[in-house]
Amino acid sequence: MIVKDLSRAECLELVAASHTARLACSLDGQPYVVPITVAFDDSFLYSFSMPGQKVDWMRANPKVCVLIEDHRQRSEWRSVVVYGTFEELPDKIGFKRERDRAWEMLQQRANWWEPGGLKPVPGPMVSASTHLFYRIAIDRMTGRQAVDDQRG
Amino acid sequence: MIVKDLSRAECLELVAASHTARLACSLDGQPYVVPITVAFDDSFLYSFSMPGQKVDWMRANPKVCVLIEDHRQRSEWRSVVVYGTFEELPDKIGFKRERDRAWEMLQQRANWWEPGGLKPVPGPMVSASTHLFYRIAIDRMTGRQAVDDQRG
Repeated sequence: MIVKDLSRAECLELVAASHTARLACSLDGQPYVVPITVAFDDSFLYSFSMPGQKVDWMRANPKVCVLIEDHRQRSEWRSVVVYGTFEELPDKIGFKRERDRAWEMLQQRANWWEPGGLKPVPGPMVSASTHLFYRIAIDRMTGRQAVDDQRG
Repeated sequence: MIVKDLSRAECLELVAASHTARLACSLDGQPYVVPITVAFDDSFLYSFSMPGQKVDWMRANPKVCVLIEDHRQRSEWRSVVVYGTFEELPDKIGFKRERDRAWEMLQQRANWWEPGGLKPVPGPMVSASTHLFYRIAIDRMTGRQAVDDQRG
């Protein structure tokens, strides 16, 4: 088993192919990590969320970290750590193009509203209009790959 | 599809059954998230790491967050968010019992040295003695579960 750094092109390839990720944000020195659904475009990761702690914290501190992983089997994996900046895409004039782009990409994913889009509340399904769309501007990436060195 | 909060007992059940998790730490407002191997015992999550950014940051700011997930299928999942405090288990008198306990539990996992235990460096496998053992004291947990409401 050996571990190698991924090139920027290899990082981008994994990020572009991923539909789910883990997002870490922090406030006052307390980190918080949750699963999210993502879609990559250009130098941004697009996503959405119901209102809640994640959104509150990212509004207060837009520095985030996103972990993207690919496990082919237990002993072979690739992972990319993205350092980025949260950018809200509010339902206002001036953000329509980015919101439409986020919607277009995210709705291509099956069950796109999970896991970020549901809250543990009883009652009927909330409408999509209560969701917040946002994107993460990718500032920097690092990636690693573990491969079985018995394969040559 | 409905989402329910997990009880403390349900959170503990998931945490105890898990071998892998995602650990978030933060320093100066910048979060960082990586995959780790874990073993739960009593009110602690035990793990290990090679020296590096994760360890440096947790030494500087011991507040961490651990995400543990169980995906039975895409539409049914359980996840627990653990808020905890990093505690190093140094190779010194006074920590032998905790280090032995960590070693005992972690070596039961196949490939226990991954993904936290490998660095992308060429050359022979590093010895286990360079690994740092640590544990996370669980301060608080929250959990959620998504279930298919068509099943009744």
